[in-house]
Amino acid sequence: MSEDELPSNWGRWGADDELGTLNLITDEVRERASREVRTGRSVSLAVPIQPSPVLSGPFPPRTAEESPVQQLMLYTGNPALAYADAMTVTNHHVLSTHLDALAHIPQDGQVYPGRPASESVTMGGVVHGSTTAFADGIVTRGVLLDFGANGPVPADHTITARDLTAAEERFGVHVESGDALVARFGWVRARYRGNPMPGMTVDAARWMHDRGVSLYAGDLSDAYPPAQPGIPPAMHGVALPRLGMPLIDAVDADELAAVCAELGRYSFLLVAAPPRIHGLTGVPVNPVAIF
Amino acid sequence: MSEDELPSNWGRWGADDELGTLNLITDEVRERASREVRTGRSVSLAVPIQPSPVLSGPFPPRTAEESPVQQLMLYTGNPALAYADAMTVTNHHVLSTHLDALAHIPQDGQVYPGRPASESVTMGGVVHGSTTAFADGIVTRGVLLDFGANGPVPADHTITARDLTAAEERFGVHVESGDALVARFGWVRARYRGNPMPGMTVDAARWMHDRGVSLYAGDLSDAYPPAQPGIPPAMHGVALPRLGMPLIDAVDADELAAVCAELGRYSFLLVAAPPRIHGLTGVPVNPVAIF
Amino acid sequence: MSEDELPSNWGRWGADDELGTLNLITDEVRERASREVRTGRSVSLAVPIQPSPVLSGPFPPRTAEESPVQQLMLYTGNPALAYADAMTVTNHHVLSTHLDALAHIPQDGQVYPGRPASESVTMGGVVHGSTTAFADGIVTRGVLLDFGANGPVPADHTITARDLTAAEERFGVHVESGDALVARFGWVRARYRGNPMPGMTVDAARWMHDRGVSLYAGDLSDAYPPAQPGIPPAMHGVALPRLGMPLIDAVDADELAAVCAELGRYSFLLVAAPPRIHGLTGVPVNPVAIF
Amino acid sequence: MSEDELPSNWGRWGADDELGTLNLITDEVRERASREVRTGRSVSLAVPIQPSPVLSGPFPPRTAEESPVQQLMLYTGNPALAYADAMTVTNHHVLSTHLDALAHIPQDGQVYPGRPASESVTMGGVVHGSTTAFADGIVTRGVLLDFGANGPVPADHTITARDLTAAEERFGVHVESGDALVARFGWVRARYRGNPMPGMTVDAARWMHDRGVSLYAGDLSDAYPPAQPGIPPAMHGVALPRLGMPLIDAVDADELAAVCAELGRYSFLLVAAPPRIHGLTGVPVNPVAIF
Repeated sequence: MSEDELPSNWGRWGADDELGTLNLITDEVRERASREVRTGRSVSLAVPIQPSPVLSGPFPPRTAEESPVQQLMLYTGNPALAYADAMTVTNHHVLSTHLDALAHIPQDGQVYPGRPASESVTMGGVVHGSTTAFADGIVTRGVLLDFGANGPVPADHTITARDLTAAEERFGVHVESGDALVARFGWVRARYRGNPMPGMTVDAARWMHDRGVSLYAGDLSDAYPPAQPGIPPAMHGVALPRLGMPLIDAVDADELAAVCAELGRYSFLLVAAPPRIHGLTGVPVNPVAIF
Repeated sequence: MSEDELPSNWGRWGADDELGTLNLITDEVRERASREVRTGRSVSLAVPIQPSPVLSGPFPPRTAEESPVQQLMLYTGNPALAYADAMTVTNHHVLSTHLDALAHIPQDGQVYPGRPASESVTMGGVVHGSTTAFADGIVTRGVLLDFGANGPVPADHTITARDLTAAEERFGVHVESGDALVARFGWVRARYRGNPMPGMTVDAARWMHDRGVSLYAGDLSDAYPPAQPGIPPAMHGVALPRLGMPLIDAVDADELAAVCAELGRYSFLLVAAPPRIHGLTGVPVNPVAIF
Repeated sequence: MSEDELPSNWGRWGADDELGTLNLITDEVRERASREVRTGRSVSLAVPIQPSPVLSGPFPPRTAEESPVQQLMLYTGNPALAYADAMTVTNHHVLSTHLDALAHIPQDGQVYPGRPASESVTMGGVVHGSTTAFADGIVTRGVLLDFGANGPVPADHTITARDLTAAEERFGVHVESGDALVARFGWVRARYRGNPMPGMTVDAARWMHDRGVSLYAGDLSDAYPPAQPGIPPAMHGVALPRLGMPLIDAVDADELAAVCAELGRYSFLLVAAPPRIHGLTGVPVNPVAIF
Repeated sequence: MSEDELPSNWGRWGADDELGTLNLITDEVRERASREVRTGRSVSLAVPIQPSPVLSGPFPPRTAEESPVQQLMLYTGNPALAYADAMTVTNHHVLSTHLDALAHIPQDGQVYPGRPASESVTMGGVVHGSTTAFADGIVTRGVLLDFGANGPVPADHTITARDLTAAEERFGVHVESGDALVARFGWVRARYRGNPMPGMTVDAARWMHDRGVSLYAGDLSDAYPPAQPGIPPAMHGVALPRLGMPLIDAVDADELAAVCAELGRYSFLLVAAPPRIHGLTGVPVNPVAIF
């Protein structure tokens, strides 16, 4: 497979587009999503983050566990009439559920949909393809394909287009244009950096393209080591930069899977509304599935 | 009015409760909320945040506008295979739509529901009454009372219980137990720190208590200068610490008001799901109203 | 001993003074200090700080040791024509050699020399008694009293005025007005927070007052648990807030002690010139002894 | 002039050297430097930095001036028994007097003395050519050449080897091997980013190489726009990466020049001892000249 054969949405929504596959979330999609809401029961898809403290007194903790967030308790007067804090957040962290903006990964010096990376990303922030695209929050129908229902997907396994279709049939659901795809590998508690892990094939990314997936959210996405050497990784190398598909990394879909199994349905309203901070390459998010 | 006469939920849900009025969001409330979703149309209630850059090159910008977020573009290798950043976030900032945790404001050395503040808030973070309560996201019915429909509420005006009831009648809506109350003063673009501004009376907070409001979200909340000298401010001095009611500060309800007026209905599904960061005094949030 | 009997410099150099005992560094003192410089041999008194990285890539380190400094490598263009970074520094950290400003410790709601703490220290920074006092760097004669020459001072031991005088005789040196006193307990590698450790008595602080010590720099200063319950700690409770004596915490004087022993002299030119950052409560410093 | 003709110290002190021209500061140099100290009078060469506050209360300042340092006042208990803060520091900032480490500027993918940049600088910090080289502080003889004695050097002017020699004669001083060269353009208060400014020629850098300058400290260094298009800038493109000469940027030598003129001598002991923080690309410093 040559690079030319990789699926792409460059140009599909114009040369200045910043929404990418979020363009697929039309009024019709939203209306379909709305029909998923029947009881109001909701489930978070985010990994909890316990911030590390930054202390200044004489007896700070000796060890702090790695965390995507460093917290600083702030002085607010003496006596303190309020308690307040600031935090330093690493936007792309393996232990943080976060939404990747399209400028996160360049391809051949360009970011989606073909804008020069050097003009899109500056030392002062991101001017094209940033989190500004998520300003209003993402509201669409979500579909869970639970590949980890019978235990974690083996580290040397890949998920292909055929697997995706088979899972649809197994769970009685059909991914339609504008849907968010939630994939569960069963790895949220097993994931370690640098260890081998399974992932999607480029074939699977093409399936998502064909179906019109607007957003991918998974506990894993790309295999490590790379599934297909010489070919860009399916999600961060093809889906994000070429399809313009935002990715939610480090999702915890365990409770979601339990609820879907309990209710016997694998579709829901998905709301992914990160803080409305523009100009970032990514941002922490707490995606919520509503049934 | 003495302090004893102020409404309080201390003890109502136990001595260790951290949810406060979020306890009022029952299955029945969620089911009622779910019925608000008909078209999937959604509106953000968050003020956009443009982060200030922190640059390190020889030619950084000379001036940076005040911002709740400072962004640092990170080195990710040379050449950069990805673009990434970190940010420093001030959790309680007048220009940031954020969700106040219950430990944000102590009352007489205690935080809701009567825990010693010194044990609840430490130099290393918040161990009781923190943003941990928002881990799953808040999903409930929202009701907009638009006091700014005919222009900003005058600076020397206060909103009373009577005003709340009158607004319900005017907009054809009724606040019920577990609902989130969204109040619009019409001040999101006029608000300046230190300038006089209108706010709620303690009487209005009592009304919210009687009705069972689970969450308050407003473009304003407490008057400045204080509406009733000698009495704690209604929202940050009574509702938050005594009722255990989380507050969303610095809401932008302008587009919401326009949509409610267009649709002729002032209730909706409200999803307020901030990043799942535990142990904070507050956290930026992008509340989304879904119709 | 009542509080009234504690030594104090409040009022000695006026009600607005911010220099405290640094006032004692006169032209005569500087001239005496200059005579210590004979070979230009120099020794650092600072503990090395290895910053912890803040990473944003997919594979950050799993564990980071506690550090007073968090480093962020910054994006400087693609390709990078320069490498640059930012850092977050905790100014008072037990693992960082730092200079305490006089406003660091209040006494009865006041900071040296009796200014209301609430006016001196604000949410926005320090307006009186800050690191502004160190703007020009501190240059004076330093004298080492090495109490750890024969092994670490035992944890339950205290250093008294008598001990200070005895050490002078032992090392053939005499502390004079304006001198900086460097005290070595031999604890720089043994020090742990929360463990018992030795310290100075108030009697020793009075000795320093009588002698006119301008600056104290030690690997330890105050005992833990407190040496004299009911009385403020000698260095952080008496010397800093009452005498207006800046303190350099967490000094490493091991190499200094070795050089002094080798050269057979325990006095030197001391230069303590932290970054010229105003308005802080403290600041990292690399004190240098020059022989 | 081809790149081959540019002066270089690569290999001079071995393939793993991290000190560069600091190697020239020998015992003999230090002894010569020590003879400059006669009165102990000292002068700071650092620009004052007023940190910007990061506030979390409801009424932070509306505007903050650009600053290399962001200060956060920290919570230290209620009541506060101590005042403490943390700060975020941008290590290479035009308004901050700072010491550039050798890894700051790569040359053709390598850092001094020819180590691959990709191995020397990582996402987690600098492992070769960092501020670790400054751990003990820099102590040597300093020489001021005051090109701004009669007003700022014109923006379109360059300082050549001939100018350096002429200045030596004018000020009665001779730069010798191991000396630090302090150059004053008279621009510390006139300097603006993006505006044209004067600088050194590569010829001048070669002069420094021939003389054995160990450290360059100036209120300016390289011209903007570049003095010699097609040739690397003299100080940041030749002296730093090829000669391995650390640079102190953004020096304020105004008071130093006044003292030199008053005393009639242009040499002194120079102590540049930044906080002992390893692994950085640069670090704020308060260089002190002692007479």
